[in-house]
Amino acid sequence: MKIAGKVEVEDLPRICPLLSRRTNPRYGEAQTRVVQVGRVRFGGERPVVIAGPCAVESREQTLEVARAVKGSGADMLRGGAYKPRTSPHDFQGLGLAGLKILREAADETGLPVVTEVMDPRLVEQVAEYADMLQIGSRNMQNYPLLVEAARSGKPVLLKRGMAASLCEWLGAAEYIANEGSLEIVLCERGIKAYPSGEYSRYSLDLNVLTAVRAETFLPVIVDPSHATGVTAMVEPASRAAIEFGSQGLIIEVASDRLDAATPRCDAAQAISPRALRRIIHFIETRQEYIAEKAHVA
Amino acid sequence: MKIAGKVEVEDLPRICPLLSRRTNPRYGEAQTRVVQVGRVRFGGERPVVIAGPCAVESREQTLEVARAVKGSGADMLRGGAYKPRTSPHDFQGLGLAGLKILREAADETGLPVVTEVMDPRLVEQVAEYADMLQIGSRNMQNYPLLVEAARSGKPVLLKRGMAASLCEWLGAAEYIANEGSLEIVLCERGIKAYPSGEYSRYSLDLNVLTAVRAETFLPVIVDPSHATGVTAMVEPASRAAIEFGSQGLIIEVASDRLDAATPRCDAAQAISPRALRRIIHFIETRQEYIAEKAHVA
Amino acid sequence: MKIAGKVEVEDLPRICPLLSRRTNPRYGEAQTRVVQVGRVRFGGERPVVIAGPCAVESREQTLEVARAVKGSGADMLRGGAYKPRTSPHDFQGLGLAGLKILREAADETGLPVVTEVMDPRLVEQVAEYADMLQIGSRNMQNYPLLVEAARSGKPVLLKRGMAASLCEWLGAAEYIANEGSLEIVLCERGIKAYPSGEYSRYSLDLNVLTAVRAETFLPVIVDPSHATGVTAMVEPASRAAIEFGSQGLIIEVASDRLDAATPRCDAAQAISPRALRRIIHFIETRQEYIAEKAHVA
Amino acid sequence: MKIAGKVEVEDLPRICPLLSRRTNPRYGEAQTRVVQVGRVRFGGERPVVIAGPCAVESREQTLEVARAVKGSGADMLRGGAYKPRTSPHDFQGLGLAGLKILREAADETGLPVVTEVMDPRLVEQVAEYADMLQIGSRNMQNYPLLVEAARSGKPVLLKRGMAASLCEWLGAAEYIANEGSLEIVLCERGIKAYPSGEYSRYSLDLNVLTAVRAETFLPVIVDPSHATGVTAMVEPASRAAIEFGSQGLIIEVASDRLDAATPRCDAAQAISPRALRRIIHFIETRQEYIAEKAHVA
Repeated sequence: MKIAGKVEVEDLPRICPLLSRRTNPRYGEAQTRVVQVGRVRFGGERPVVIAGPCAVESREQTLEVARAVKGSGADMLRGGAYKPRTSPHDFQGLGLAGLKILREAADETGLPVVTEVMDPRLVEQVAEYADMLQIGSRNMQNYPLLVEAARSGKPVLLKRGMAASLCEWLGAAEYIANEGSLEIVLCERGIKAYPSGEYSRYSLDLNVLTAVRAETFLPVIVDPSHATGVTAMVEPASRAAIEFGSQGLIIEVASDRLDAATPRCDAAQAISPRALRRIIHFIETRQEYIAEKAHVA
Repeated sequence: MKIAGKVEVEDLPRICPLLSRRTNPRYGEAQTRVVQVGRVRFGGERPVVIAGPCAVESREQTLEVARAVKGSGADMLRGGAYKPRTSPHDFQGLGLAGLKILREAADETGLPVVTEVMDPRLVEQVAEYADMLQIGSRNMQNYPLLVEAARSGKPVLLKRGMAASLCEWLGAAEYIANEGSLEIVLCERGIKAYPSGEYSRYSLDLNVLTAVRAETFLPVIVDPSHATGVTAMVEPASRAAIEFGSQGLIIEVASDRLDAATPRCDAAQAISPRALRRIIHFIETRQEYIAEKAHVA
Repeated sequence: MKIAGKVEVEDLPRICPLLSRRTNPRYGEAQTRVVQVGRVRFGGERPVVIAGPCAVESREQTLEVARAVKGSGADMLRGGAYKPRTSPHDFQGLGLAGLKILREAADETGLPVVTEVMDPRLVEQVAEYADMLQIGSRNMQNYPLLVEAARSGKPVLLKRGMAASLCEWLGAAEYIANEGSLEIVLCERGIKAYPSGEYSRYSLDLNVLTAVRAETFLPVIVDPSHATGVTAMVEPASRAAIEFGSQGLIIEVASDRLDAATPRCDAAQAISPRALRRIIHFIETRQEYIAEKAHVA
Repeated sequence: MKIAGKVEVEDLPRICPLLSRRTNPRYGEAQTRVVQVGRVRFGGERPVVIAGPCAVESREQTLEVARAVKGSGADMLRGGAYKPRTSPHDFQGLGLAGLKILREAADETGLPVVTEVMDPRLVEQVAEYADMLQIGSRNMQNYPLLVEAARSGKPVLLKRGMAASLCEWLGAAEYIANEGSLEIVLCERGIKAYPSGEYSRYSLDLNVLTAVRAETFLPVIVDPSHATGVTAMVEPASRAAIEFGSQGLIIEVASDRLDAATPRCDAAQAISPRALRRIIHFIETRQEYIAEKAHVA
């Protein structure tokens, strides 16, 4: 039975000749191409930690969380100014005003900032304020947006679609590469499977990390916040992702002040700055552990 | 365990107050709002059949298939001028030239034409040539595109995302309604599940039709070509969809001339004009059967 | 990347040489081997309708429903005496007493009866009272049970596991064939996918019917009650299954007397005898339609 | 729309009153009940590592691997004497002869041994040779088998069904508890999802670990071999599982002698004794790290 459009990992050299290791022996079997955002190096010596609020809700809230994640040791700031929401009647983000707040928070803390762009006509605007553009899960196969993001000259954080195969994901990245930019960081963020909604929001798919790193030289990170949707899972998922080979994390953080307002998006998956600190401490300690482990293998 | 963003069918009146039956008692529990494209009436007395090539590849191929589907009794023409492809290196469609060919085929056959638009900046262009705009599965949650399509004044065919929940799908439709347009036709086109790729491309999900019709007054049709990905399944899937309450079909057809070129997209799911004729004959005969059945129930 | 245990439809001649069409050209490309249960012929000229209560709860309830399904025109009776339940604290069925009630209902109505067996040690007992043994979804890969059922000499109704691939399903059937029995009827009953629990219990997978019929000569039927889990979907799902090529249906029916007790299992998916009558009328009328269709194709 | 049999985590106190934390406050919110197999303590101070061949193929092969896993520091031995295979024509295991070999290997190495039982009639036989009984994924809802295993007096390793919900899994465990035994260890082993077969065999679902530990006091471990199906993923998956809170691992190991025969089952997911050693070293080193971490939080 011939199936239309059936794709296999074997097709990757054809789907993404620019990004497949098999057609780009330059990076060998294991080496990652480093993507640099300011001083932050994805695919470098150490996993990168991006953290911040789900959405920019106000100047105060954003600056508070930005200072907190800086204090916890994060490398980079995240926050949504344009928010893709299931309902048009839900909070859609502050837009341009949100971008300006993000820029201020980034400048004050010295952390580069990544934020989502959903509209090809706004790529230029978002690129003016952000250091890295995020393509969200819902837009992974929004090809005109990918092309525009590539042309902006900014590095792109490409989230995996919530039901994307490896071939579809790397094919989407190839649209960026095809515009001449290899400044791409991939991000696994949980997939839809039958358990979705029973005890977690999505199913964190760590297996894909090994496959990504075997098939392409792009760096890949994990979003434990969306991949679980449950605050209590974010810390263990973060450590697990690092152990599985993730080259970074992007985490939603909320203020833990007793009188802080509940976040307007995804409050049930936000962690505290203190929990973020523990995750970063884990990464730091692990680096020392790796150095030590060298004596065993 | 609280899960971020868990949505249930019970949330629909909040997610899509403009489209939910519960907040719009005007259409009662069963009535569908008719969406009209030329003389074609979605949600009217009879299921609508849209047919045509996967992609517009040339004037000759398109006119040939258009005449054939007209001859088979189809109500409307389909064909892709802008094609979303997994790889940027695959055929991307003829673009504007393709739109002009589609318009010619529509005018010659007298069939209204629907075609996909992927870029909000091209909505105006596509709307100039097409009678109905298709939002493809990959772009179901491309909200700026939905908004632009709504503003075009053209009716919209909104395909279900390949892993969209009912809430996400109706939420996407609500973005269109929120711009003031109720000219929306929904289209189930198969979902991603574990069997995908073993014996069919996607899993045809007919259960959702009953749910859609219970929750909203929008008409809903089925794409048996993508939902199966296998030519031999398209005919039975078409009949099954109609029996399950689908208010129409959108089907990919290819020439069955012995010397016709193989389609450049999805050849393994195309059916012949003769098979299309059988599907339409089934629908016609069934209408008579329904009239007769009235004596039984 | 080599994956352990990856199986493809291409492996079927190796997995099930006794049941694969490719290794058994005797049945050609389309012919089904008829499985006979009393006068009922699965894979014969007409789809078979099995109907009855989810569980045998009492003599009265069972006889009432049995008479009703007989009156509606069903070919065969179903009912559970041994019930596999998610919790051990839920009603587990009447066991032997239930089997005796089923036998009485079968004898009175003249309908052969199928019932589930879960324990290889009880196959002999169940086979004494039933005309056909059902292997439920949870036990599709309970190989000792399959072997024992095969040895009983009774025909077997083999439900698809709720996440079984085609290869796993036909491989399970092969265990029966390997004991020398080809008296096997397959039954699709819905699969687990991400929508499970949002608007339907499982996802009815009709695509698999074409694949089953292409790959093996065994008859295949559909269980629209479990595949939907929603009363309002059972009738459309039944008609759709028949149109997709299903060679029969197995349907849960409950009394519609106003003072009838609510069924102790799966009340939300039971249909009334009157709805069953409509389904059977559909099948009868369709046979005439097929005769007529012969003039068209 | 009412869905038959829809179960939610909220139903767990009803489904499994004996195993739910909410109905058994004795274990508090976080404490695990220790299950002891010889000197091995599941849910104790340290994660337990079970390792051994997929199947017992011969005395030599089994003893060699048993000695190797002992040498690598494993706590317990695994190996299949009765093998559930997709095809009846594939190697089915050595049966009783395999059990005797396993016992010999266990006695020689001093490691307790766990092995799968598939038939309630063989529980007594398997329990005579094994220290712990494994219920495999295919038989998770084989309730007569669960009951018989519970009555054997041996502790039970209950693998999660490959598409089991949390409720179904804990419900299955409750069948064992209902016979008076709490000697149950749960084992996550990968679920079926759309990526299955593209780059990994199943999708490792670590999110469920947090949910299991929140809802029940039973210990839970992970099978990284089946959950990935790819040798290169087993090591990272093992470390990730431990970081996510898994209380142990069960891993398939094969000889790495150059002249060793390829395993007859699942060769593509077996790791070497050397890789096993690295995993165990990770666990040991991590214990020290945890001690250190106490100073931070």
